[in-house]
Amino acid sequence: MPNHTLTLNNGTKMPLVGHGLWKIPNDRIADQVYNAIKAGYRLFDGACDYGNEVEAGQGIARAIKEGIVKREELFIVSKLWNTFHEREHVEPICRKQLKDWGLEYFDLFIMHFPIALRYVDPAVRYPPAWFYDGVTPTDIQLSNATIRETWEAMEHLVDIGLVRSIGISNFNCSSILDLLRYARIRPATLQVEHHPYLVQKPLMEFAKKEGITVTAYSSFGPTGYVEMDLEHAVKTPHLFEHPVINEIARAHGKSPPQILLRWSTQQGIAVVPKSDTLPMLLENLDAKGFDLTEEEIKEIDGLDQNLRFNDPWIVRTPAFLVPY
Amino acid sequence: MPNHTLTLNNGTKMPLVGHGLWKIPNDRIADQVYNAIKAGYRLFDGACDYGNEVEAGQGIARAIKEGIVKREELFIVSKLWNTFHEREHVEPICRKQLKDWGLEYFDLFIMHFPIALRYVDPAVRYPPAWFYDGVTPTDIQLSNATIRETWEAMEHLVDIGLVRSIGISNFNCSSILDLLRYARIRPATLQVEHHPYLVQKPLMEFAKKEGITVTAYSSFGPTGYVEMDLEHAVKTPHLFEHPVINEIARAHGKSPPQILLRWSTQQGIAVVPKSDTLPMLLENLDAKGFDLTEEEIKEIDGLDQNLRFNDPWIVRTPAFLVPY
Repeated sequence: MPNHTLTLNNGTKMPLVGHGLWKIPNDRIADQVYNAIKAGYRLFDGACDYGNEVEAGQGIARAIKEGIVKREELFIVSKLWNTFHEREHVEPICRKQLKDWGLEYFDLFIMHFPIALRYVDPAVRYPPAWFYDGVTPTDIQLSNATIRETWEAMEHLVDIGLVRSIGISNFNCSSILDLLRYARIRPATLQVEHHPYLVQKPLMEFAKKEGITVTAYSSFGPTGYVEMDLEHAVKTPHLFEHPVINEIARAHGKSPPQILLRWSTQQGIAVVPKSDTLPMLLENLDAKGFDLTEEEIKEIDGLDQNLRFNDPWIVRTPAFLVPY
Repeated sequence: MPNHTLTLNNGTKMPLVGHGLWKIPNDRIADQVYNAIKAGYRLFDGACDYGNEVEAGQGIARAIKEGIVKREELFIVSKLWNTFHEREHVEPICRKQLKDWGLEYFDLFIMHFPIALRYVDPAVRYPPAWFYDGVTPTDIQLSNATIRETWEAMEHLVDIGLVRSIGISNFNCSSILDLLRYARIRPATLQVEHHPYLVQKPLMEFAKKEGITVTAYSSFGPTGYVEMDLEHAVKTPHLFEHPVINEIARAHGKSPPQILLRWSTQQGIAVVPKSDTLPMLLENLDAKGFDLTEEEIKEIDGLDQNLRFNDPWIVRTPAFLVPY
């Protein structure tokens, strides 16, 4: 299966379809990554916060050792967690994360949220998650780091070769605009929640206009949040069963997940789904096996409800903020 | 009628109910302001962008001249437009706006949007609105000013006494968080769209926790946008006719607008409605004449659709971006 790529604003090529690593259990992720590489995946989207970088790296190492893939053929993404936003913490934590993965560089390193939290020493708790004491949902303590301070420290990671590209996640238009005013290195990518219930057309168009490639997360909508018992995810109709998605799936002889992914990729938006089974891994990777009609894309756009599931500001649903 | 106030984080008192000046025609606003003062209004919420500050000031001057009110009893709000975000433009435009009003100081000066647009000389076009050439909806040109640069210039306005308090508008949680990291003077208020279709509970709670008083605009929801032919406003049920609002209004013997305003003020959120008629002016001002039950507030909260009408990023609806 061909591995389609997008060209980022710094000339780097990034796979259009990658494999997300959020919520993959530590005891399964090494095999998962290894099997995904065998299935043809080249991009893996990890993060400090997912708490599984060591084991993900083991899967990478095995595939490289067995000659299935070379490091330079892979595109490894990781993310800077909120508690490491202060200038002096950015490089050390990036080095720790590289060590966890067993890598010499990340292809892309992303500011996970535009939210700076009080530093937690990795020796005390790692990953630190949202709550300063690690337990109490109201114990969210802020750091004094500005976004600019953090971004400059991330630019330095490019300068010293620890990362090839830097990006942002969970930023909105105004926040991006402000960042662009002082960025010496412009963000190569923006990773945001994106599915038919949260279309965010203006943000997509703004990013495109500014030359920032968008990666969608939670492409399947509420699915990933139901298991976290997030109230409005439980209440929202599952997209795999949605009549609009199903009708289009039938028309193309494809699965509902494939329709959801193609809806993004056909618009130049990268995706990072995950799947447990080889058939579904292959299905998800098949980003360009078919095209939706313009009408079908509009029909899917029409499902928009401006419904966000991963909103760290929903302080009223502490269930969501519990460490993953 | 007593004029209830909120105490801002700098100790200043601000009326809980004010009079908004958006979209009031130039040939009517002087009388409107004058009559509102006679009706008991003390806060007027203006902006460069509303294009009616000269005439609003005439209404103020008449009321002061006739001894109906003293300057120090009024709370005059104006806003910095997007095209004046560069450091060197902030003080001159504030001075011009004060001159337009015929005032020596503003009680509150607000950054209208966290969006910096390319400078337009007031001699060329005033107010400059969104489009650089004043006409073409795609001609949105940006400025290089950061939010920090603009905020520091606004802090300077406090230092030199041109404004008593400074605030922000149309910021979200992350943008506020970033600003708070470098602000020497914290924003006294946050003005945002707020109505039962856009409850934004997390933003409200965040502002409260950070000691920033919230002022709601568009308290009546789609009403103010229908006349601008904004598609999703036209399609959305008018809140004055909404069964939930009407039922609560009947139960209290109040009007639907009063229910909508009380829903905000009872939660400590200031409001700035406008009205053409004296009875409605008085109705709107009656912020504390009755209380909603906790259950009623929750019922109104339940109308939330996360539906924003004033979204400058909806580039696809240029109708909205046409100069007011």
